[in-house]
Amino acid sequence: MSDHFRRADGARVLADLNTLRAFGAYKTGVHRPTFSAAHRQSLTWLAERLPDAQLSPDIDGIGNVLGVSAKPGRKLLAGSHLESQNHAGWLDGPLGVIYALEAARVLNPDPSIDGAVEVASWCDEEGHFGSMLGSRSYVGDVSEAEIDAARDRSGPRTMREALAEMGLAGRTRLHAERGRHIGYLEAHIEQGDTLETGELKVGVVTSIVGIWQYRITFSGEQNHAGATRMAVRKDAGLALAQFCVAIDARFPAACGPRTVWTTGRITLDPGAPSIIPGQAEMLFQVRDDNPAVVDRLEQLLRSMAAEATAAGPCQVEVERIRTGAPAMMDGAFQDAIEAASAALAGGKSLRMPSGAGHDAQVLATIMPAGMLFVPSIGGISHHWTENTADADIVTGADVFVDTCRRLLTGAP
Amino acid sequence: MSDHFRRADGARVLADLNTLRAFGAYKTGVHRPTFSAAHRQSLTWLAERLPDAQLSPDIDGIGNVLGVSAKPGRKLLAGSHLESQNHAGWLDGPLGVIYALEAARVLNPDPSIDGAVEVASWCDEEGHFGSMLGSRSYVGDVSEAEIDAARDRSGPRTMREALAEMGLAGRTRLHAERGRHIGYLEAHIEQGDTLETGELKVGVVTSIVGIWQYRITFSGEQNHAGATRMAVRKDAGLALAQFCVAIDARFPAACGPRTVWTTGRITLDPGAPSIIPGQAEMLFQVRDDNPAVVDRLEQLLRSMAAEATAAGPCQVEVERIRTGAPAMMDGAFQDAIEAASAALAGGKSLRMPSGAGHDAQVLATIMPAGMLFVPSIGGISHHWTENTADADIVTGADVFVDTCRRLLTGAP
Repeated sequence: MSDHFRRADGARVLADLNTLRAFGAYKTGVHRPTFSAAHRQSLTWLAERLPDAQLSPDIDGIGNVLGVSAKPGRKLLAGSHLESQNHAGWLDGPLGVIYALEAARVLNPDPSIDGAVEVASWCDEEGHFGSMLGSRSYVGDVSEAEIDAARDRSGPRTMREALAEMGLAGRTRLHAERGRHIGYLEAHIEQGDTLETGELKVGVVTSIVGIWQYRITFSGEQNHAGATRMAVRKDAGLALAQFCVAIDARFPAACGPRTVWTTGRITLDPGAPSIIPGQAEMLFQVRDDNPAVVDRLEQLLRSMAAEATAAGPCQVEVERIRTGAPAMMDGAFQDAIEAASAALAGGKSLRMPSGAGHDAQVLATIMPAGMLFVPSIGGISHHWTENTADADIVTGADVFVDTCRRLLTGAP
Repeated sequence: MSDHFRRADGARVLADLNTLRAFGAYKTGVHRPTFSAAHRQSLTWLAERLPDAQLSPDIDGIGNVLGVSAKPGRKLLAGSHLESQNHAGWLDGPLGVIYALEAARVLNPDPSIDGAVEVASWCDEEGHFGSMLGSRSYVGDVSEAEIDAARDRSGPRTMREALAEMGLAGRTRLHAERGRHIGYLEAHIEQGDTLETGELKVGVVTSIVGIWQYRITFSGEQNHAGATRMAVRKDAGLALAQFCVAIDARFPAACGPRTVWTTGRITLDPGAPSIIPGQAEMLFQVRDDNPAVVDRLEQLLRSMAAEATAAGPCQVEVERIRTGAPAMMDGAFQDAIEAASAALAGGKSLRMPSGAGHDAQVLATIMPAGMLFVPSIGGISHHWTENTADADIVTGADVFVDTCRRLLTGAP
């Protein structure tokens, strides 16, 4: 072993990822929603692995798994999440947890490293019950009342019922001990095709974009689809379609270079084939790392709604239901990832923002944070076909372990 | 009593309609889906009323209620349906049944009338389990296999389970006795505002338009709503919105004077706020009394889909899932309604097509059929606010009874 590098055990990393893939296997991906049986299996499995890295495991009252080190010296927190979106990919979440576990297994037993990697699996990053509940709980940003009110978005259970079924009811929630960690490091697949297109191996994340979410509602008049003449209709569904097309036409001139926007859900009410919809609703999302751009787009959205209402025949209302400030990644963390990439990935790295949200944006509110991306084949994400080449997974693991080493030892 | 006219008992008609309104009352309307407890109450209530009109009641194996007369002479079949759309209006269906009951109560005991009105309540005209199953069963157009396959569109029950819960499992289904009836007469609220706008009291239905139903699917690429740049997206939801707007722009130049078209339901898959929809589907309906017009519009729809697919980035497919030929109403029935309106409604009638479907279109396949409309306030239909002025309900009842008298006696 060289003085400098501590290599990851690539075969072990791949084996661990494939073990997790079997919990809730769905086609080539996984269906492992928060607090499902498969999710519980994955958390238990991780807790049982942590002693291999000289970490004491704990599962807390919101489903976070944490491995705590008794080793003296610096502590670096690292991890990601183990639950998945419904019927989604095998690496989104597990990659970052296994990289963290691998770094802890390599570095924690090494007496020449004056410090340790502590491993975290944050619960419900994918938002089945809320918004990044596990990491937000850890930084002190989730009240008991919020847990009381939380419900499964795709099932009948309350969060309290789900916690009880997981055997977690009444457990203490773990909170960050301020000053304990030099920072937080997370790895993830890119969820885009920038690295693949550029034949690169590592993304050095500079910032995580903010997410602004809107509910846009259209009010017309419900009526019979046969007996109501076209001229007198107030079709809320048609008004919604026209609004989507207007956004597509007008946003490009007002957006920033990396802004993205998405209509993810449309509901017509009552949604029957022979009834003209009287109400319609769309969930609309804007992401950018520049709040000023989003302000401008929100103003445009509201003025478009006012124009559409004035033109008739339906009323359009825009309601902002979520505001997410962008999170900047720490400069020293970016430098460490870039140096590790230069040493172990042939320098094939690129500084880039993250368009997706991650637990790192929550940890960044209380400590320095960094993120590392590996390539994603075809840029596919949040779908069961999501994948990364084995060789890229192993290269990423090497870079991750070495980044941890650099951060713990203060190496340049 | 004059030689000519037999007036309806307006107070009795209104009282009966309000009794039915209490079965499944919802706001000022009703929620009385097919085979619900409220629906069963309404069928039982009707069966108990039929002897008042010298009719023998029967509830058959598909939930049709029929009142059969032993009186010699001509038989006229009359009726409508008692179930409602979900959370819908109080008159859609019951008006026609109570008018038929009233005509039977007035005319059947009258020895000067050489004939009788027989009353029918057709099951599931509103399509909770199928498409006009009750009247189609009566004309011999529903197989046992179709009943085996039918399911509640808004609940978990199969039709067989629902029939068993209603106590109807194993009962014989009644079929039309060819030649027994001189025809079928049905009354209904207009479900449009033509009569109200023209200050008219009676619509003389000339034809019932056909309904053509299409499933239009859009295939793109499911991806992450944050990490996927706008330029590379294949957003199936946006493609759907663009298609709706294109229909709105291009159909008016190709349609007929009374064509209507409706997108009643839109589904994005997977329908999550942070996922670009990879699939989208719309249920699209065209109604017209001229099949040639619909042929032309279907060709336009298919060429628009081909154009959109060629332009990309999503594929658009059009599938016809229902074809409904228009039904012509019998000329002598139209004349009888018009003559009764001249005598009892000050001649305030109008010949007009029905844009909505009714059981009369099914009965028209085996016997002469006619329909009579009364005004609907604001043209509202398939909504709990649906209503008609009491005075208009009573005038309609008078015209209905007199139309039956004219048809039974062969009066001009």
